[in-house]
Amino acid sequence: MYTSGKPRAKPHCFLASLGMKQEGSLRVLVKGVTDLEPGDHVLPVFTGECKECRHCKSEESNMCDLLRINTDRGVMLNDGKSRFSIRGQPIYHFVGTSTFSEYTVVHVGCLAKINPAAPLDKVCVLSCGISTGLGATLNVAKPKKGSSVAIFGLGAVGLAAAEGARISGASRIIGVDLNASRFNEAKKFGVTEFVNPKDHDKPVHEVIAEMTNGGVDRSVECTGSVSAMISAFECVHDGWGVAVLVGVPNKDDAFKTHPMNVLNERTLKGTFFGNYKPRSDIPSVVEKYMNKELELEKFITHEVPFSEINKAFEYMLSGAGLRCIIKMDA
Amino acid sequence: MYTSGKPRAKPHCFLASLGMKQEGSLRVLVKGVTDLEPGDHVLPVFTGECKECRHCKSEESNMCDLLRINTDRGVMLNDGKSRFSIRGQPIYHFVGTSTFSEYTVVHVGCLAKINPAAPLDKVCVLSCGISTGLGATLNVAKPKKGSSVAIFGLGAVGLAAAEGARISGASRIIGVDLNASRFNEAKKFGVTEFVNPKDHDKPVHEVIAEMTNGGVDRSVECTGSVSAMISAFECVHDGWGVAVLVGVPNKDDAFKTHPMNVLNERTLKGTFFGNYKPRSDIPSVVEKYMNKELELEKFITHEVPFSEINKAFEYMLSGAGLRCIIKMDA
Ligand SMILES: [Zn+2]
Ligand SMILES: [Zn+2]
Repeated sequence: MYTSGKPRAKPHCFLASLGMKQEGSLRVLVKGVTDLEPGDHVLPVFTGECKECRHCKSEESNMCDLLRINTDRGVMLNDGKSRFSIRGQPIYHFVGTSTFSEYTVVHVGCLAKINPAAPLDKVCVLSCGISTGLGATLNVAKPKKGSSVAIFGLGAVGLAAAEGARISGASRIIGVDLNASRFNEAKKFGVTEFVNPKDHDKPVHEVIAEMTNGGVDRSVECTGSVSAMISAFECVHDGWGVAVLVGVPNKDDAFKTHPMNVLNERTLKGTFFGNYKPRSDIPSVVEKYMNKELELEKFITHEVPFSEINKAFEYMLSGAGLRCIIKMDA
Repeated sequence: MYTSGKPRAKPHCFLASLGMKQEGSLRVLVKGVTDLEPGDHVLPVFTGECKECRHCKSEESNMCDLLRINTDRGVMLNDGKSRFSIRGQPIYHFVGTSTFSEYTVVHVGCLAKINPAAPLDKVCVLSCGISTGLGATLNVAKPKKGSSVAIFGLGAVGLAAAEGARISGASRIIGVDLNASRFNEAKKFGVTEFVNPKDHDKPVHEVIAEMTNGGVDRSVECTGSVSAMISAFECVHDGWGVAVLVGVPNKDDAFKTHPMNVLNERTLKGTFFGNYKPRSDIPSVVEKYMNKELELEKFITHEVPFSEINKAFEYMLSGAGLRCIIKMDA
């Protein structure tokens, strides 16, 4: 039999569009851990890096066999138990971190040790979506200086992908979104042109091909819409175009294109957490912020004390702003 | 509008499975040409390299804007006329080369100048399918030493892809073909294991994933069957797997997979003529043969004099052997 049409694994990375972040590092209490000390500053990450599995040993993958995101796992790996409880009943852990809390218990593989000088209320956004979009461009699409890049979806992840294109020196960054109100915000992130598929009768990949003499050099899709994924692939130039998928699709979606679009030397890639290995790579992303190459302030549109966490959920659900920081000690 | 579902260009490379080759170089008659001299040995190639267009100037593409394969173009580019005639009627040129002939007129961009010591009745097979399969592996899939590679389709192009995997030092080369009789031949090309999709009730990508602890590192599809293309993509390992499509599909085919298979860090690429630029790269492939890294003899199963060219067509149509050399002066 040739194919079943089914995905080979469960969806991952649903957190990529989660619109809020707890503030920065937590105090590290070290037990049986050799590479962290009490007082270290860390970013807890929803996926991990055991440094021992085939994925961690591969230069190409960050999909750790032991610690890759598992939303069904609410307990510790070693004893299958939770470390939180209320009135004798367990509270289960949340995607490996459980950080809406002053103290937590986290597998060491999910903690990135960072520069203690980094402001935690800024770099905390690197634990998830911002690194996801940024890495999709910097690590996977890899646009050259002067190239053209299309970004599908101008939420925080897409804008982080645009920030990656800006850092790479792309000369044209074309933002694509069905919501015209995104466009003004996007300019801050280096987006130079806008396309709203609703404004055109022809397929958006044709619109982009016409704007760019045959197609963009790179595209990054950050919507989760399978139509956008297909357009992101079909809008890259033949011969050298690379399209990178970031958005998480629905269970029943099918990515569908004519094979000739592939044969004409286009490349389709997918990425998870921007291909960053949490422990090995995230500290250097923090450094990019410290040396002012990467701008994080523009992603942070709201701040609330922990007592108002439900406001943060409201901002997220209504799509207000980009990232809301929750101050644990406010 | 998001997508039309149509390919962005016409099919190319239908020659990739053409089972015969005229013998080697033709005598070069140079007119207005500065980088070839009378007596040079050349390989005429069905696609070209003008060295001036954006594709030729890109390191990543070999799809020359001026000279890429165009099966509708039976005339010279400069004056729109044919250079062959019979009894006053034009005979049109065939894919830029028209080499079933002792003399021909060819655009200089379709001629690769090669080592004059190379035996023309061997290296002539590098003008089309053998380079296509070889380059698909060496230039696009790029397997590392010790890796696993699946080859879909064990015709000459697929076996050339296997030869590329052998040269790369792949430790496992898994051949996939619906025709069991291909398997013995394939061993000569380094194929170590065989899978016939007909022998299994489950999808072949699952069979391969089970054989390889999660999937092969690389796959190369050389069939033109869209089911095989999908399987070739779905059988590569998450995190680092790369699938390369070579076979030319039908007009109405659709490549279809669950987007999650992409997001789990698989890469899908297509290639045309193995990503070789004819003039820049093919001379070095001839050198690979000269220094015995690449074996070409095993691809050549038949030879006929020009007077028996119809026998060569019969071999091709019946699938007898791999490549038949036509001796022009026999
Ligand atoms: Zn690991
Ligand atoms: Zn050219």
